[in-house]
Amino acid sequence: MSAAVESRLAWVAVDWGSSNLRAWALDARGEVLARAGSGHGMLALAPDDYEAELLRVIGDWLPATGRVPVRICGMAGARQGWREAAYLPVPTRLGALARGAVAPAVADPRLAVALLPGLCQTADEGGRAFDVMRGEETQLAGLVAREPGVAGLACLPGTHAKWARLEAGAVTRFTTCLTGELFALLARQSVLKHSLAQGDDDLDDPGCRDAFVAAVREIRSAPAAYSAKLFGLRAADLLDPRLPRGPARASRLATRLSGLTIGLELAGILDTEDGAAAGPVTLIGGASLCARYALALDALGRESRCLDGEAAVLAGLRLAHDALGPAEGD
Amino acid sequence: MSAAVESRLAWVAVDWGSSNLRAWALDARGEVLARAGSGHGMLALAPDDYEAELLRVIGDWLPATGRVPVRICGMAGARQGWREAAYLPVPTRLGALARGAVAPAVADPRLAVALLPGLCQTADEGGRAFDVMRGEETQLAGLVAREPGVAGLACLPGTHAKWARLEAGAVTRFTTCLTGELFALLARQSVLKHSLAQGDDDLDDPGCRDAFVAAVREIRSAPAAYSAKLFGLRAADLLDPRLPRGPARASRLATRLSGLTIGLELAGILDTEDGAAAGPVTLIGGASLCARYALALDALGRESRCLDGEAAVLAGLRLAHDALGPAEGD
Repeated sequence: MSAAVESRLAWVAVDWGSSNLRAWALDARGEVLARAGSGHGMLALAPDDYEAELLRVIGDWLPATGRVPVRICGMAGARQGWREAAYLPVPTRLGALARGAVAPAVADPRLAVALLPGLCQTADEGGRAFDVMRGEETQLAGLVAREPGVAGLACLPGTHAKWARLEAGAVTRFTTCLTGELFALLARQSVLKHSLAQGDDDLDDPGCRDAFVAAVREIRSAPAAYSAKLFGLRAADLLDPRLPRGPARASRLATRLSGLTIGLELAGILDTEDGAAAGPVTLIGGASLCARYALALDALGRESRCLDGEAAVLAGLRLAHDALGPAEGD
Repeated sequence: MSAAVESRLAWVAVDWGSSNLRAWALDARGEVLARAGSGHGMLALAPDDYEAELLRVIGDWLPATGRVPVRICGMAGARQGWREAAYLPVPTRLGALARGAVAPAVADPRLAVALLPGLCQTADEGGRAFDVMRGEETQLAGLVAREPGVAGLACLPGTHAKWARLEAGAVTRFTTCLTGELFALLARQSVLKHSLAQGDDDLDDPGCRDAFVAAVREIRSAPAAYSAKLFGLRAADLLDPRLPRGPARASRLATRLSGLTIGLELAGILDTEDGAAAGPVTLIGGASLCARYALALDALGRESRCLDGEAAVLAGLRLAHDALGPAEGD
């Protein structure tokens, strides 16, 4: 395997986040030769740890001699990461991310590393608020690389969900919502944990699906009731005779919490000027979470389409790799 | 001390919650002779543990012979508590709580224990949702005992804040908000913990006070933006040049989170039919938290007044004690 990779390896793409890293070995045509990863993200690493961790994960791919370009997006470029690649302020053309790349010092002569920058936004009177992203901008660049004319709203759901307004190949503004983290804290660490399923809920179940859609609509029409509707999950568990018994009950309530929390996010985004942007929302991420957001958007009368998150980040890293050229990273 | 208590002791009042208990020794005129407490609440006790824990806390007060009435409100009366005192459904006259009291079996012949019931609410088409309270109803009974003609909205802020509509000595409906728990989870366990002060913030500081008031107003006018404004605290910490440096910065951001979270609660309550009830809101609880809610209500143009939580629960337990009479609890 590693011999086969070694002989065809042209460059390495890496998405290095807070809590893990994913790496891809690519040939000159962009074909993925191998994948690897680890659970050592920025939160677990000091600056001096990054090169060793990178070699531990991708070392088998490297030839004995010659330099291999390694293009990295995500938190490895944060101030607390390997080396800071300073945020580019929006509006930023996504094809120009490579201009903000930095090369950390490396000891191994086979590595030519470039860390891509994130994006930042400064508050203004037009309603823009301070905001930052690191990693998602590269997925957005991948979307633009695949569809140069794309415009409108893109959403990257997750722990910190990102919503970006795209115009003419640039991010003009964006908003981060704490949605995924809020859900996880409430489901696993609040009083609600006694009432809710701890694993994945099941949107294929018609009862759960209906509960999810109803919750999304309910909170959109009364977003200020969020705090009361949270405790209402506990009270319903104690009192509501219409809820099913057993594991189905805990799943139903977990799905409702998901609907309330995603619905609050959507209400906040869609009821703004940006939210009114024409055309479908482009969802970028894993299939299951994107399907959940697509269902929520549909419940509010909004079209969407999905782009696989891995395909997006690879396309974005390739765009940066092409812009940097093989010599960069010295 | 215990001899002095013993000779004048008429009854014992207990507020026994999820995580602690507070007990008061009272004479025949209702004067507090002594206070005691422990950190052993419902979550730490099995049904068979309660009598021993009660004796550990109040045993010194008891005379060698004779029966002492012990009146208990709170989670000790929950299904998972000492013995269940079933919820009374609203509307419920607060003077009638004693009718739902139950007497757990006790081995010590000096104890005549009564556990007071909580209140429950069933969902209806008029917008009422399933809800429950245990303990707060006794504080509301105390308010009614002190002011028989009281009407309008009462609020008991806390981990699970309770809002009750009072009419003619009865609770007609109520709403619980997860506000305090939501704040604690976000401040201590989310990504925001890196940016926020972990201790008390300081509403006496003019900068914090202004930040709190601004956050309350902001979220009331755009409650759906809650999730985005949460992440905005992190982004502001990274980017906002107007924030002070050092500990003042972390305090400022913690105060803002408090304002956003309490403001969301107030928006949800005040923008309903009940919220429009005439007259000031009666806040019941500790002085510091009540002052915070009073400031938030004032920021939204709503008057309030405060009633000390200990005075309220004692007045409520006394009302139940008077209704039960000395013989009850056999």
